[in-house]
Amino acid sequence: MRRDDCIFCKLANGMIPARSIYEDENFRVILDAAPATRGHALILPKEHADNLYQMSEDMIGKAFVLAKKMVDSMTETLGCQGFNIVQNNGEAAGQTVFHFHIHLIPRYEDDGQGIFWEPRCYADDVLDEICSQLTK
Amino acid sequence: MRRDDCIFCKLANGMIPARSIYEDENFRVILDAAPATRGHALILPKEHADNLYQMSEDMIGKAFVLAKKMVDSMTETLGCQGFNIVQNNGEAAGQTVFHFHIHLIPRYEDDGQGIFWEPRCYADDVLDEICSQLTK
Repeated sequence: MRRDDCIFCKLANGMIPARSIYEDENFRVILDAAPATRGHALILPKEHADNLYQMSEDMIGKAFVLAKKMVDSMTETLGCQGFNIVQNNGEAAGQTVFHFHIHLIPRYEDDGQGIFWEPRCYADDVLDEICSQLTK
Repeated sequence: MRRDDCIFCKLANGMIPARSIYEDENFRVILDAAPATRGHALILPKEHADNLYQMSEDMIGKAFVLAKKMVDSMTETLGCQGFNIVQNNGEAAGQTVFHFHIHLIPRYEDDGQGIFWEPRCYADDVLDEICSQLTK
């Protein structure tokens, strides 16, 4: 399914122009219009899914295998020193366009970006309780 | 292959204790010891690979299909409002332990974390040149 009101459906399916760097039957990869670094790209499925929750396991496998292929080839072409793969789900997680996408962010020494979080310290009994909750 | 000097090899293979929430023949999922949020977990392959570059496509597919399964079940259990999936490769990308791992970060409204980057503005001709470089 493709949504008429979804900008990423339109970009993925070539209905509006994008800087496309790869395309196959299921996905298009485009350059991010507001990149973190030189070469920052997005993997977009052609069929609409709001997020990871709505994607099938089969399509998730294909999307991230494609991510690996792209990271391998882009690293060689761009000469970057590393790569972040980031995939956000839900407004609380910073997702801003509600069509599943994977950020491929080439990293260069001294590129001035920092994609991280503030590590927090939890008491052992709290961690034990979370572990217990998740293994029930 | 497992490395004697790799802390994540030891954690993945149960050679040192961890708060393990899932295990199969290829992977272990543990709680991060310095979590961004409640329930922050790491997917670790049992066989050593420094990063994405050293992983096979088959194992990458399996690792991220597992990520989807974990995100689905953890969202239900934790009652979080979103999820970040983050996978860093190389020191320039903020990788600190050089054994491939996937961060699964549950997100809650007002959790006070922000996993983002500063969007940059590139001139059209620069973006065109990057696009051309990557599609050669």
